[in-house]
Amino acid sequence: MPRRPFTRLPVEERRRQLLELGAELFARHSYDEISMARVAREAKISKPLLYHYFPRKQDFFVATLAQAAEQVRVLTEPPPDVPPAEALAASLDAFLAWVEEHALAYRKLLESAGSVPEVRVLVDGVRERTAQRILDGLGVAYPPPPRLRAAAHAWLWFLDGALHDWLAHRDLTRTELRDFLLGALAGALQVAGEEALLRV
Amino acid sequence: MPRRPFTRLPVEERRRQLLELGAELFARHSYDEISMARVAREAKISKPLLYHYFPRKQDFFVATLAQAAEQVRVLTEPPPDVPPAEALAASLDAFLAWVEEHALAYRKLLESAGSVPEVRVLVDGVRERTAQRILDGLGVAYPPPPRLRAAAHAWLWFLDGALHDWLAHRDLTRTELRDFLLGALAGALQVAGEEALLRV
Repeated sequence: MPRRPFTRLPVEERRRQLLELGAELFARHSYDEISMARVAREAKISKPLLYHYFPRKQDFFVATLAQAAEQVRVLTEPPPDVPPAEALAASLDAFLAWVEEHALAYRKLLESAGSVPEVRVLVDGVRERTAQRILDGLGVAYPPPPRLRAAAHAWLWFLDGALHDWLAHRDLTRTELRDFLLGALAGALQVAGEEALLRV
Repeated sequence: MPRRPFTRLPVEERRRQLLELGAELFARHSYDEISMARVAREAKISKPLLYHYFPRKQDFFVATLAQAAEQVRVLTEPPPDVPPAEALAASLDAFLAWVEEHALAYRKLLESAGSVPEVRVLVDGVRERTAQRILDGLGVAYPPPPRLRAAAHAWLWFLDGALHDWLAHRDLTRTELRDFLLGALAGALQVAGEEALLRV
């Protein structure tokens, strides 16, 4: 059985460390403020080595976001074998806790999602998969009826709108926000004609 | 009484014509594809004259959007003296008709809203004013309670999410979409604890 080349783990470890540094830097500064020279300096590596991992700044930025998206996906994996409403509440709880912990970064993302085309593609992809996950969780057969697909999709925009408002005002508790969001989802699903799907 | 300088109207007329041309061009092409040279050529004016009206391409783009936003604001002014639910339905009808007529442009806007920082500011401002208009229409005193403010604000994101989905799939009629959107708004307001505000 072939062994993995011995450099494999350090390379992955380095990449992981760079992405963690990126998450920190992009949370505190705008995209334009961060240069690859600065990233290399803060990471204590040479610029050529940094460019070996990420050929362009936008690749580094997108990889940082993709790692955060993957982290969120794992964090919000609902517990198995619980009723749909409970699973959704648990996922949303985990997501809101993550947003609160990364408030600055999430706010930046909401405000600059279009600045790099790849970011929009990534955000669209995350919404697409999350909408599908919500519908799967509710036991909706694929492909979903148009209104239900629209409801799940539009609610994810509602979620970001509510977070945009919440991060600016912070005048609801996280639990109040969660209940408000779950109620709005139930309302959207109900008006989509599937009121039996979710009772909150 | 002083008369307006005689060039006043032609200048405004020229500006209006340029913005109409801009609306057409930006609907059919991405921001990066349009050069000021091309705008001047299609407008049959010199580049210096174009730059006299709009010092930078992004000024031209933002002015184009601001004019469209103003057009939408006027179009969606609800008829006076009708009940809140009816006024909202009429405004939403007018807005959806406008979106359908400018489908390509609106899709582009949703997809590239962040590419120019001024555009994000403009979109945020439109959402802010529209949320306030919705709450005013419902007779909510200023400042609105946090949940109601969040509901109106987040619903405008929901609206854009639903339009993003609708413009991609087009498998709901405009009336179905309108009723779905009004129902979702009623649901969000209801869960915000103000169920008496809107019955659809």
